[in-house]
Amino acid sequence: MRDVAIIGVGSTPFGKLEGRGLIDIAVAACREALADARVPREKIQALYVGNFIGERLANQGAIAGMTANRLGLGGIPATKTEGACASGGIALRLGVLGIALGLYDFVLAAGAEKMTSASTAEVTAGLATAGDEEAEMRCGLTFPGSFGIITRAHMARYGTTREQIGLVSVKNHGLGAANPKSQFRKPVTLDEVLRSRLIADPLRLFDCPPISDGAAAVVLCPADRAREFHAKPVRVMGTGHATGPATLWEMDDVTTFPATVRAAREAYHAAGIAAADVDVVELHDCFTTAEIVASEDLGFFPRGQGGRAVEEGWSALDGKVAVNPSGGLIAKGHPVGATGCAQVYELVRQLRGEAANQVRNCEIALAHNLGGTGVVSTVTILGTM
Amino acid sequence: MRDVAIIGVGSTPFGKLEGRGLIDIAVAACREALADARVPREKIQALYVGNFIGERLANQGAIAGMTANRLGLGGIPATKTEGACASGGIALRLGVLGIALGLYDFVLAAGAEKMTSASTAEVTAGLATAGDEEAEMRCGLTFPGSFGIITRAHMARYGTTREQIGLVSVKNHGLGAANPKSQFRKPVTLDEVLRSRLIADPLRLFDCPPISDGAAAVVLCPADRAREFHAKPVRVMGTGHATGPATLWEMDDVTTFPATVRAAREAYHAAGIAAADVDVVELHDCFTTAEIVASEDLGFFPRGQGGRAVEEGWSALDGKVAVNPSGGLIAKGHPVGATGCAQVYELVRQLRGEAANQVRNCEIALAHNLGGTGVVSTVTILGTM
Repeated sequence: MRDVAIIGVGSTPFGKLEGRGLIDIAVAACREALADARVPREKIQALYVGNFIGERLANQGAIAGMTANRLGLGGIPATKTEGACASGGIALRLGVLGIALGLYDFVLAAGAEKMTSASTAEVTAGLATAGDEEAEMRCGLTFPGSFGIITRAHMARYGTTREQIGLVSVKNHGLGAANPKSQFRKPVTLDEVLRSRLIADPLRLFDCPPISDGAAAVVLCPADRAREFHAKPVRVMGTGHATGPATLWEMDDVTTFPATVRAAREAYHAAGIAAADVDVVELHDCFTTAEIVASEDLGFFPRGQGGRAVEEGWSALDGKVAVNPSGGLIAKGHPVGATGCAQVYELVRQLRGEAANQVRNCEIALAHNLGGTGVVSTVTILGTM
Repeated sequence: MRDVAIIGVGSTPFGKLEGRGLIDIAVAACREALADARVPREKIQALYVGNFIGERLANQGAIAGMTANRLGLGGIPATKTEGACASGGIALRLGVLGIALGLYDFVLAAGAEKMTSASTAEVTAGLATAGDEEAEMRCGLTFPGSFGIITRAHMARYGTTREQIGLVSVKNHGLGAANPKSQFRKPVTLDEVLRSRLIADPLRLFDCPPISDGAAAVVLCPADRAREFHAKPVRVMGTGHATGPATLWEMDDVTTFPATVRAAREAYHAAGIAAADVDVVELHDCFTTAEIVASEDLGFFPRGQGGRAVEEGWSALDGKVAVNPSGGLIAKGHPVGATGCAQVYELVRQLRGEAANQVRNCEIALAHNLGGTGVVSTVTILGTM
């Protein structure tokens, strides 16, 4: 397998992007990434686009072909990948594999979602399709409900406190406030989090990500050609992609996602590193509790210590490992299909030393994307070169 | 690149599959394919599932992870691919590439769609998301409308007659009548086609495919191991995957789809054959006219002669090239995401000599899958070994 590098990244702002359709925002992120890489579009040989639910919330399917056509990519193969909220991470991984295996030399991987044109009820119903419809969601369970259950289980099993969980929101909103691409630009206090509207007990409004529009894109090429295109290319050290139980009732323990554990194991093995080597991570905080669970599943903190980690500042910008310096899904926003690529957008900028909330001396970064309540996960490990 | 073989295929019947959800039918097709290949599920290293619009018509997303979990595939990477009606062809191609490039030894590629639970209005609106929403579909164009325009253009440019177009339906319904997996099992006369209800002038009801549920699956492995698993393995000789204009107004000529032409060129080149070498083809007859256009784009008949080809019997079971011996989308049914894999299901059975409408002495077969009005296309060439 060939070494793969990232030579360009692009991202729209996240939020309510008025008057801009799904194709528009995907194209905008791709154009920014191509310009960042200084790669002419004629060189691009394949396009992968992660998108969860464009057919339902934006009336737009076949987004990969549409985007390739609008970008003028000359008839290249284009594939939409979908794995609920991990759609973007899967697109990126397929792009990396295409170059690693020698099939292509230049690949564009992107993610996009347009959610704010639909009503909140439509969004909630649409997001619920990431769960097993017949076996769980039809009974009325929602994603906030699922993570409410997971939160109660983590509190009961490990003594995690409501305050520790709320501090994830305080940390991420604080970081998002400084990120110009972030949907929320205002810090919140723990008191505000704990007094915000109850959504799914014990989770409150500020424990949840917003409904967002947004897109992000990444240009990939073989590592040995990367410096022709960018002065600070980033190495893809390893990737992982795994599946797991689709429903809470199939899980032996609802406080851990086997798909994350498997994908991380594969990515660490490929990269030849351990969790302790990672300096900065963008992980899938689709709820505050999800950050705590992921930080344990990825091996950054011992099982059950994810809540304490936030309280002690271990996951702060200057902590043991900086977690979600972009503001994470909770503050930056969560245009579902875009998230996997947007995490990599932030991490590439961290490794280049260009981030809004710059982590000092960072050399190794990890992106973690999760679909549903753990039905699928991807992990990507990046490094300076 | 390693040679790749198909060692097992499976398919549900197509039609209205009452009481069976999207995951159920995907799992059923996969189980049949695994049994056909006599491959234990533990050997499968990756799953690709083509599905267009499960999130909208079946309230079910993340179908690949859901299917992997339900099949007990042990946490392997699973990816849903979407390219409108070409979703299944893309899944198959990614599976083939995974083995050709040495990433995996055993891959399951499948396609599935559950459409009959939704209302006809919901299906029509859902299918319209395969077009460019902002640039075309929002104005009220539908897929039958698009192909009505294409039909008029073909008639005007080449003198193709309404009767020739209707004969596609007569041929395909006649073939579908003998196929036990087919949704329609009754021959129709030309008179019945021409008197059937007008849908989008000049296309009538029997020019259109039905709304269908169904799934199909394919097991792939390296060609040099294929005989361990099946006495009559089928070789994947070449594949192609390309994109093209997303809207009619962007096309220089609406009677040809550049994506089909490109994908075919790539597949013929990889296989080292020409169109004249193909004995049997399953092509994307999403409307009668689409069969005529595809038969020209794939190089079987000269430009403008597709109508005459049907009339002269060139595309009949015993013609120059047997076109859609399964009954095609029009008679067999068109569960959108399943179609690309269902075409290969038929062709593998043809090459094994097991088909309901068996083509005599067939050694080379071609599958053609089309998304939208040509935004994406895949071509797969198969041969005996």
